Amino acid sequence: MRGAAERFRGGAQPFREGAPRVVVAGATGFAGALAAQLLWRHPGFELFAVTGRSDTGRPLEALYPRYRVPLEVEELEASRLEGVDAAIVAYPHAAAAPTVAVLRELGMRVVDLSADFRLASLATYERWYGPHPRPELLDEAVYGLTELHRAQIVGAAIVANPGCYPTAAVLGLAPLARAGLLGDVVVYAKQGISGAGRAFDETTHLSFAGENILPYKVAEHRHTPEIEEQLALLGADLPVQFQAHLVPVDQGELASCYVTPTRAIAAGELAELYREAYRDEPFVEVAPAPPGTREVFATNFCRIYAAADEHTGKVVVLSAIDNLWKGTSSQAVQNLNVMYSLPETEGLL
Amino acid sequence: MRGAAERFRGGAQPFREGAPRVVVAGATGFAGALAAQLLWRHPGFELFAVTGRSDTGRPLEALYPRYRVPLEVEELEASRLEGVDAAIVAYPHAAAAPTVAVLRELGMRVVDLSADFRLASLATYERWYGPHPRPELLDEAVYGLTELHRAQIVGAAIVANPGCYPTAAVLGLAPLARAGLLGDVVVYAKQGISGAGRAFDETTHLSFAGENILPYKVAEHRHTPEIEEQLALLGADLPVQFQAHLVPVDQGELASCYVTPTRAIAAGELAELYREAYRDEPFVEVAPAPPGTREVFATNFCRIYAAADEHTGKVVVLSAIDNLWKGTSSQAVQNLNVMYSLPETEGLL
Amino acid sequence: MRGAAERFRGGAQPFREGAPRVVVAGATGFAGALAAQLLWRHPGFELFAVTGRSDTGRPLEALYPRYRVPLEVEELEASRLEGVDAAIVAYPHAAAAPTVAVLRELGMRVVDLSADFRLASLATYERWYGPHPRPELLDEAVYGLTELHRAQIVGAAIVANPGCYPTAAVLGLAPLARAGLLGDVVVYAKQGISGAGRAFDETTHLSFAGENILPYKVAEHRHTPEIEEQLALLGADLPVQFQAHLVPVDQGELASCYVTPTRAIAAGELAELYREAYRDEPFVEVAPAPPGTREVFATNFCRIYAAADEHTGKVVVLSAIDNLWKGTSSQAVQNLNVMYSLPETEGLL
Amino acid sequence: MRGAAERFRGGAQPFREGAPRVVVAGATGFAGALAAQLLWRHPGFELFAVTGRSDTGRPLEALYPRYRVPLEVEELEASRLEGVDAAIVAYPHAAAAPTVAVLRELGMRVVDLSADFRLASLATYERWYGPHPRPELLDEAVYGLTELHRAQIVGAAIVANPGCYPTAAVLGLAPLARAGLLGDVVVYAKQGISGAGRAFDETTHLSFAGENILPYKVAEHRHTPEIEEQLALLGADLPVQFQAHLVPVDQGELASCYVTPTRAIAAGELAELYREAYRDEPFVEVAPAPPGTREVFATNFCRIYAAADEHTGKVVVLSAIDNLWKGTSSQAVQNLNVMYSLPETEGLL
Repeated sequence: MRGAAERFRGGAQPFREGAPRVVVAGATGFAGALAAQLLWRHPGFELFAVTGRSDTGRPLEALYPRYRVPLEVEELEASRLEGVDAAIVAYPHAAAAPTVAVLRELGMRVVDLSADFRLASLATYERWYGPHPRPELLDEAVYGLTELHRAQIVGAAIVANPGCYPTAAVLGLAPLARAGLLGDVVVYAKQGISGAGRAFDETTHLSFAGENILPYKVAEHRHTPEIEEQLALLGADLPVQFQAHLVPVDQGELASCYVTPTRAIAAGELAELYREAYRDEPFVEVAPAPPGTREVFATNFCRIYAAADEHTGKVVVLSAIDNLWKGTSSQAVQNLNVMYSLPETEGLL
Repeated sequence: MRGAAERFRGGAQPFREGAPRVVVAGATGFAGALAAQLLWRHPGFELFAVTGRSDTGRPLEALYPRYRVPLEVEELEASRLEGVDAAIVAYPHAAAAPTVAVLRELGMRVVDLSADFRLASLATYERWYGPHPRPELLDEAVYGLTELHRAQIVGAAIVANPGCYPTAAVLGLAPLARAGLLGDVVVYAKQGISGAGRAFDETTHLSFAGENILPYKVAEHRHTPEIEEQLALLGADLPVQFQAHLVPVDQGELASCYVTPTRAIAAGELAELYREAYRDEPFVEVAPAPPGTREVFATNFCRIYAAADEHTGKVVVLSAIDNLWKGTSSQAVQNLNVMYSLPETEGLL
Repeated sequence: MRGAAERFRGGAQPFREGAPRVVVAGATGFAGALAAQLLWRHPGFELFAVTGRSDTGRPLEALYPRYRVPLEVEELEASRLEGVDAAIVAYPHAAAAPTVAVLRELGMRVVDLSADFRLASLATYERWYGPHPRPELLDEAVYGLTELHRAQIVGAAIVANPGCYPTAAVLGLAPLARAGLLGDVVVYAKQGISGAGRAFDETTHLSFAGENILPYKVAEHRHTPEIEEQLALLGADLPVQFQAHLVPVDQGELASCYVTPTRAIAAGELAELYREAYRDEPFVEVAPAPPGTREVFATNFCRIYAAADEHTGKVVVLSAIDNLWKGTSSQAVQNLNVMYSLPETEGLL
Repeated sequence: MRGAAERFRGGAQPFREGAPRVVVAGATGFAGALAAQLLWRHPGFELFAVTGRSDTGRPLEALYPRYRVPLEVEELEASRLEGVDAAIVAYPHAAAAPTVAVLRELGMRVVDLSADFRLASLATYERWYGPHPRPELLDEAVYGLTELHRAQIVGAAIVANPGCYPTAAVLGLAPLARAGLLGDVVVYAKQGISGAGRAFDETTHLSFAGENILPYKVAEHRHTPEIEEQLALLGADLPVQFQAHLVPVDQGELASCYVTPTRAIAAGELAELYREAYRDEPFVEVAPAPPGTREVFATNFCRIYAAADEHTGKVVVLSAIDNLWKGTSSQAVQNLNVMYSLPETEGLL
C-alpha cells in the first residue's frame, strides 16, 4: 500500500528490514493521525495501514496536510491484517474494547488509547463509564505510563495508554506517593484545545475558545479515578480533587498539584527526591524553574518542577506535557518501542 | 485642555455641567490608559488631564490607538491641578505613595492602583514590599473592593484599588468566609498577558507567551497577604495557598478556589448562600454554569460559580473577571462613582 | 416579553418612550446575536424579540453568555409581530429574501444582512448565487453602506447591509473611484475567524485555525461583484482582483488595496483627497499611520490609511474594520439609526 | 565543550566521525538559537560552540528552554575557533559583514543570515542599508536560495541566506519569471510575530500583537530589492509592489502574489509549469489546494499553489513557509548540507 500510494511529498523515513508492521485504527482523529505520522517517520516500524470510520479512500494528508502521511484511509478489515504485528487503536471508550478484541484474536499486540483498559477495577470503570464491553480482556492489559510500568509493558498483549491528565499528574506526584508523603491532593490542570479532539463545537471554535479561560467538568472528571488508582498502587490511597480548564493553546498541558505533605519536607530533600526518581528517565526532565508548556510542545518530554511553600507548608508540583504527544500519541509510540525492545527514544527525538 | 486638543476622532461623550474633574496620573501604562478611556466617555466626570513620566507631549491615542483619547500626556505638576477634584494614580508600588501624598496636600481625593495602601498592616506591607514611603497616610486609606467596603468608600480620601487576583479570589470566597465555612484554601489563578502590563520581555512576547501555559512566582506571590487580610476581616484567618499562571489571552482572569469546608455543605445551601450574598450587586453575577473569562471580557462584571464536590467533600469556587477592568481600571471608576455618589454603574455598562 | 424574562444580570438600558420596536430574526448566529446585544443596550429602540430556527425557548444569553440578552429565542411568527416596526434579518442568502417578503407584507422595515438585496443587477446575483427567491423586492432595496447611500437609506423599506469585505474595500477605494483615479485594483483581505460565523468545522477549530494563515476561495469570492458594482456606481467600472485569507484573530478585518492610478498622484494630494472625503463622517477615521485591526475591535469605526509608493507608482490603501461590527451588525444598527432619524452614532459609541 | 557541558536533558544526536565543526555566532537571537538546535541534532555536523554578545556563560537552553541545547554562550574569539570548519552568522546587517571577514581570514566557510551579502549590486545595498562595511567580500558570496543556486553553493565561501519574504516570494514566482510570464507583480505577505525576532516592543507584546492584523513598512520594505534582483536574474526585470503584515501567529509566512501575466495562460499550462519546475525538489511542494502556513510549521518545506483567475486574467500564486525555518535557520542548514555535500535533507526531516 505504501508503494502504491501517490505520495504528495517529503517526510517518510525508510524503515529497517524486518521492522514490525503496525496499523493505526482510528487514524482520522487527532490522536490517531499523530500516531500515524510518528510511525511513518519511525525507522523501526512499518506503518502498514491507517483505518477510519469516515473519510475512507482519502489520503490521510488530505485530512491533515501538516502530517504528510500519504496512505489512504481504509476500513478496518480482518482480511487486510494478515502479517500485521501490532496496532494503535484510537477509538472512543466502549467502541475501543470490541475492536481490541478482534485484533487480539488475530494475534496482534495493541496499544489502546481509550479508557477501556486503563482502570484495573472493573467496578470503578463501570461507575464512571457504564458497562464494560469486554471485561474478560482486562487481565491482558497493562497500564502504559511507561516510566512506572516499563517491565510489564515489555511483554504486554494490551497496553492501555494513559489519559493525558493522569500522565502529567501521576508523573508529577509519583515521587511523593512512593515516599509516603502524599496527604491531601488538589490537581488543577489546564489544557490546550487539541485535548477536545476533532470535535467541532463551541469548545473548539476559535471565536469561543480564543481569549478564554474555561473551567469544565467541575467535580466530575473521568480522569480522577485513573489518577487515584495509580497513586494507590504507589502507596497513596486517597481521594484526589481534580479540576480541568481549557485555555487557548493548541497542544500543551500543565498539571499544577498542591500537596499537603504527611510531614514537613525541606526544599533540599524535595529536590533530591525528584532528581533521584527520574535520574535515568530519558523523557522526564526535572526542571530548575517552573516549566511552561511551550518547553515540551511537540515532544515526548514531561518537565517537572517541585517546590516547598514555607508559608503554607504545602508542596507545589508543576508538571508539563504536550497533551497530544506524551499525553497520547508519542507515549503510545514509546510504549511500542518498549514492547518491541527498540531503543525507547527511537523515533521520538 | 480638552478643547485645545486636536481630536483624532470619535468616542468622547460630553460630560455633565459641574462634573468632578479627574486626572489620571501614570496614564501611559495599561491600567492608566484604560482608566483614561473610561473617564473620557463617562458623562459624570471630566477627564481633565493625563500624565506620564514618558511620552509627554504625545496624544494618549498615539500610544493606544484603540482608546481614542486625544489628550496629550503631560508631566504631573501641582500648578496644573488647581480645581481638579480627584485622581486615579497608576504608578508602581513605592512610587505611588509619594505622589498620592502630593495630591492629598492639594486636597484631591485619590484612587490608587498600586499596592501601597492595600494592606492595613504596615508590618505585612514591609515584609513583602520593603519600607513604606508614606506610612502616615495608611489611616486615610480604604480598601477598594467596592462590594465589600462600599460604605467606607463613599467618604474616603484614599481608595486603595485591589489587586486583580484578590478581587477575583475574595469576591469568590467572601460568602464562605462570612459563613465561617472556610477551612483550608487553595487558589489557583490564571491570567492573561495584559496582567504583566506594558512590560516588554519574555513574559509578554507572543513568541514566548503564545502557545504557552506558564506558572510564575511559585510560593511567593505578593497578592497572597492581600487575600489573607481581606478574608481575615470576614472572619477567616488562615494561610492561603496561592499560585498564578499566565495563559495566552490578553484580558481575562480566573480564580479557581478549592476549599475544604469547616463542615459539610449541601449543593442547595451553597447555591442559596451565593445567591443571597450577591442578590443586589450590580456587578457580581452568580452564574448557572462554570464561567469562561470571555463572558466578562471588557466588562466590570465578576461572574462566580460554586459547586460542592461529593467525591472529595470540597467546595469549588470559580470566579472570573477581566483583570484589566474589574481587576483594575473599571473598578477604579466604580469606586469613583461611589465616592461621588453617582450611580454605581454609570459609565461602566 | 422583556418584562417577563428572568434576567440573568446587568447590561440593559431602558429605552425611550415611543422607541420603535425591533425584532432580530436569526439571532442565534454571530451577526444576529451581536445585533440583539447592540439593540438591547440602545436607548432609541426596543428590542422586542429575538427569533431563531434552533434553540427556541433558551435565553439568548445561554447561547452567548457574554452578551447578557435574557430574551428567549422564539420561532418567527407573524402573529407575534403586531406593533413591531422593524427587523434585522440575519439569515443565509436565499433563505433571507422570503422572510423579508413576509415582514414587508406586515409593513415592517427591514435591514437584511444577507446578500439577497445587495446587488442591483439580478443577472449578477444569479450568476453568483443562483435563482433569486424574490426578485420583485429588489426595487425596494437600498445598498446600506451608510456613508455612501445615507440619503436613500432614510426612507428605505429594505436596507441591504453590505458584506464585510465590501464595507472595508469600498470605503477604502471610494475617494479614488470618485476622483477617476482607479486603474487596476488588487484587494487583499485578511479576516478573523468570526467571519466564518458559528460554523463548526476545520475553518474555525482552534487546532486548525490557530497558528495558521489560510487563503481561501481563490479567484471565486462572492464579494467581488459587490465591490465591483459599488465602484462602478462611483465611476470606476473595472474588474477587481480580490483574495481573502483567514488569520487567527476573532474579530478584525483588513482590506489592503493596491491601485495602479490612472495618473500620477502626489502624497499631499492623496492625503487631502481622503481627508476631504471623510471630514464629516463620524465612523470613518483617516489615520496618520497604517491601522491595525485591534484599533477598531468591537467598534463601528473604519480606519483608513492611504500612501503613494514612489518606487512602483502605485497607491496603497489600508482599510481596517471589525468584520462583525462595522462589517455586519453595528452597521445594521447605524442604518437603523439613519432610517429612524436618530443620531447616527446613538448606541454605537 | 560538548562533553564538558552539564546537559539538562535529552535531545542531542551523536554526530558522525569526522563531521565538520560548526559554530553559531549570534545564537541568542531567534534565528541563531534555532540554527543551534538544528545542528545539535544533526548527525552530519558537530555544533562546536554557540556565541553571543549577551548572556555569555549561560547555557543556551536557559534562554530557550524548548531547544535543549546545553552549550554555554561564549564570546566570539578567534583563539577558540581553531579547527572549526564553518559558521552560521546571525547578526544584524552591517554588524555581520565585519564578523564574516574575521571568520573568512581564519579560513572558515560561512552562511550569513543578514542582508549584507544578499544583494549583488553594491549600489542597491547602499541605497537601502547605507555604506557596506566589507564590499570587497561581495565577490565571495553566493545567494543562498538553495533551489535556485545549488550549483554555486556547493563551493561557496560565503552563502548569503535569503530573507524570509524573498524565499517565499521568489520560489513562488520563479517558474513564471523563467517562462517570461511575469508582468506586473504585487506581493502581499503576512508573517508571524517571530519575524520580529527577540525584539521586545509593541510589535511583539501579545496585548498589542494578539487579536491584531497589522500592516507595516508601507512602501518601503527592504526585502523589495532582494526580490527584484532575484527575479531579474531569472529574466523578469521589473519593479515589485511589496507589502508586509504581521498577524498573531508565532511562526508562519504566506506570500500571496498577484501577477498580470505577459500573455494569457490556461490553468493546465500553469499547473504543468509549476509541477515541472519543482518536480525534483525535496523541499518545495506544489500543492493541490491553497496552503495554510500551519502545513509547513516547523519544517523546511515551501508549499506553493498557483491558480489562474478567469475573471481578471491574473495569476494568483500562494507560497507558504515557516519564516524561522525555511525562511531563515533551516534553510541555512540546508545550505550547509549542500556546501559539505551531505544529503540535502539530512537533519531537516
